[in-house]
Amino acid sequence: MKEILETFKERMDELFENKNVRAMRELVEDTPEADIAEYLETLEPKNALVIMKIMPKDLAADVFSYLEPGFQEEIVGIASDEEIKKLIEELSTDDAVDMLEEMPANLVEKVLKCANASTRAEINRFLNYPEDSVGSIMTSEYASLKAEMTVRQAIEHIRKISFHKETVYTCYVLGSRRSLLGVIELSEILGCRDDDELIENLMETNVVKVGTADERQEAVRLTQKYDLFALPVVDSEDRLVGIVTVDDIVDVIEEEATRDIEQMAAIVPTEDTYLKTSVFSHVKARIPWLFVLMLAGMLNGVILGEYEVAISALPILVTFMPMLTGTGGNSGSQTTATVIRAMTLDEISLKDSFRVMWKEVRVALCIGVVFGILNFARIYFFTSDPDRVKIGLVLGLAMIFTILMAKTLGAFLPLLAKTVKLDPAVVASPMITTIVDVVSLMFYFNLAMQLLSHRM
Amino acid sequence: MKEILETFKERMDELFENKNVRAMRELVEDTPEADIAEYLETLEPKNALVIMKIMPKDLAADVFSYLEPGFQEEIVGIASDEEIKKLIEELSTDDAVDMLEEMPANLVEKVLKCANASTRAEINRFLNYPEDSVGSIMTSEYASLKAEMTVRQAIEHIRKISFHKETVYTCYVLGSRRSLLGVIELSEILGCRDDDELIENLMETNVVKVGTADERQEAVRLTQKYDLFALPVVDSEDRLVGIVTVDDIVDVIEEEATRDIEQMAAIVPTEDTYLKTSVFSHVKARIPWLFVLMLAGMLNGVILGEYEVAISALPILVTFMPMLTGTGGNSGSQTTATVIRAMTLDEISLKDSFRVMWKEVRVALCIGVVFGILNFARIYFFTSDPDRVKIGLVLGLAMIFTILMAKTLGAFLPLLAKTVKLDPAVVASPMITTIVDVVSLMFYFNLAMQLLSHRM
Repeated sequence: MKEILETFKERMDELFENKNVRAMRELVEDTPEADIAEYLETLEPKNALVIMKIMPKDLAADVFSYLEPGFQEEIVGIASDEEIKKLIEELSTDDAVDMLEEMPANLVEKVLKCANASTRAEINRFLNYPEDSVGSIMTSEYASLKAEMTVRQAIEHIRKISFHKETVYTCYVLGSRRSLLGVIELSEILGCRDDDELIENLMETNVVKVGTADERQEAVRLTQKYDLFALPVVDSEDRLVGIVTVDDIVDVIEEEATRDIEQMAAIVPTEDTYLKTSVFSHVKARIPWLFVLMLAGMLNGVILGEYEVAISALPILVTFMPMLTGTGGNSGSQTTATVIRAMTLDEISLKDSFRVMWKEVRVALCIGVVFGILNFARIYFFTSDPDRVKIGLVLGLAMIFTILMAKTLGAFLPLLAKTVKLDPAVVASPMITTIVDVVSLMFYFNLAMQLLSHRM
Repeated sequence: MKEILETFKERMDELFENKNVRAMRELVEDTPEADIAEYLETLEPKNALVIMKIMPKDLAADVFSYLEPGFQEEIVGIASDEEIKKLIEELSTDDAVDMLEEMPANLVEKVLKCANASTRAEINRFLNYPEDSVGSIMTSEYASLKAEMTVRQAIEHIRKISFHKETVYTCYVLGSRRSLLGVIELSEILGCRDDDELIENLMETNVVKVGTADERQEAVRLTQKYDLFALPVVDSEDRLVGIVTVDDIVDVIEEEATRDIEQMAAIVPTEDTYLKTSVFSHVKARIPWLFVLMLAGMLNGVILGEYEVAISALPILVTFMPMLTGTGGNSGSQTTATVIRAMTLDEISLKDSFRVMWKEVRVALCIGVVFGILNFARIYFFTSDPDRVKIGLVLGLAMIFTILMAKTLGAFLPLLAKTVKLDPAVVASPMITTIVDVVSLMFYFNLAMQLLSHRM
């Protein structure tokens, strides 16, 4: 809501000018952290730091976690060791790790030096999880209960620990050495009418969980399938090491969709937002694939060179080229985009490969035959060339062939990529378009040279 | 987790055969609803209904909400009025509405006839919200408190209402006529050490909220920005009418990304999963845009017909066509995909239009100049044509022009679409590719006819 931020900004600017610390403190405590962060980003880093210092330290850490990485860096750059110490001890592990992953080495060192030994050890452990793993998005804050607690004891226990909202609503029942015995929703505990009932009897023992090394996409799948707010993460010995909360899952979903879209559009995935990415970085993200595809286009040209005789003799053939290759490219993109998206959403897996291919073949034949006939008819009725039947046949058959090939390849290549554990989006539309271009033009001109040899 | 489902299936099949109702009831109560639903879908609808009948009715409704629309339909089709009555009264409003939206009219009638008057009125009201509005994804179940309650009273009150987990963790403080005074997290209430503190003093009065008629994308934006679990929805008089929970937000995010991807790939968005969509529906979703783009390709052919003289005289020019149009198409797709995605993620808005265009122009010039020089050099060094300097110039300049035009249009058209309140993804890559094809080939052949007129 724009209004919250605007009202806040007006009053805050005024109070800041008058150095009214008490009123500022009251104001920030009644404003959502996300808006305070957005406001701070409009200030000089040193003024933002002044305002962070008047906040209670847990609020300051929360607000800090909402700041853009670049701004976090500036704040850390000018903050004193004492200020960093307070901050790093209050931040959730996942927020601290997110921040450090984006920072240059010297600042990471500065921050870690200020953390106490156990925090430092934990952060270092988290920093070691691979980028796309569950470990990289989990947090180590969670609410744990014991199986032998009663409902009353559990509620008392929960009321004593003061965690963030996202980490307290699902409670984990731990046995010896943090082994995960069960999971129970806070709503279930509160809803139990018998205060002396044991947690043991209420908890869900069929626990949905992931391992630290699992792909984060697996955490997304489970969170969605079971409508979870938090998902427990266990190590190889089934001990609880952390949880993944739904707000981080939401971010992963957005990131994965963006990555799919970028790769389908032949862009090397970028990290920053559009406007924050420099012209040079945009160029760097776009030039590699454009270059590869241009080389492929050149190859295409070399092959076309073989048909110079046909081109000179029957320039009308050239006029159908853009339509033929365009339709091929579009048909292929349709299939690849659909198949890749269905894989991301887990609607299809490798064992469905045959069904997918068969479906695409049938779709391609339907569309191909319709378009083939349309093109034949158009040439037959609207062209005056004496060989219009043959030219129509060449184009119509080439159209069917092109659509069939585009859609078959468009389904096959992403499935193949997945089989050999490559990211399917890498082989997406542009590469398929290029292959389809080459093969369909070869088919087209060869057929033309067969059927229309008397004109060459 | 596959294992939960598999273990469940084995034991359930056995118990079902032996008609051991008590053991089945115990088993389903200790199994996640999503897995029970997946299991039921493997059965005959009439057997699934038998198992649903042995479950407590709230569990049966929960499980039912996880079933695929088609399977829900079959169950409702064979269920008795009494069974439907139990089901519809237990379902959350949003789940009931989701189900009815997918059903044929006669079944909707059958279901509504079984609901009591107030449920029916509420469902009808919800069914009337437009498809992309907040109203269409909200639910009417939420936990409300009064401002004058103490922490102790609030906890007692919450323990008495037994709602689903997703609707009880954020509590809404209502005044007269359901006006929304404030919002408070359950964790905040539980965390308060003073049992006599008034809710009034703890609640957040700067409430982040949406209206029923707002776009659901706005609910997504706010949920993400503020890391919410639930977002209150108010009517035009600021009275609370429902909430949107984060699990539904997750679904909207997936759906929007899928829609963007489909539209970028020239597909009319579909509803069902890939394998559930029939061949005919796939054809129907893909043929319209393919046809429009084929017509555009024909237009392109007509324009190319104007250059038949040039083509016959210098067939080498044709061999560069696929590379030129291919690079143009890919450059345009890169920009459109990036810009559309950035708009979906709210990274850019219309007021940034000028910055976006300016950025794309610079990116295009960088890439264009590099590619222009590469192509000139390639022709100069690797071609033996006596006019290779001129041919190199034609291709190099056409390359710069094409990339510049593709990227400018690629940014301009989605921004324009947004300005006139069209879905930007509709004008995405394929349309831009076609325009770029036409204009770049006209530029290319006209320039060739100017510089190489002595050969025509």
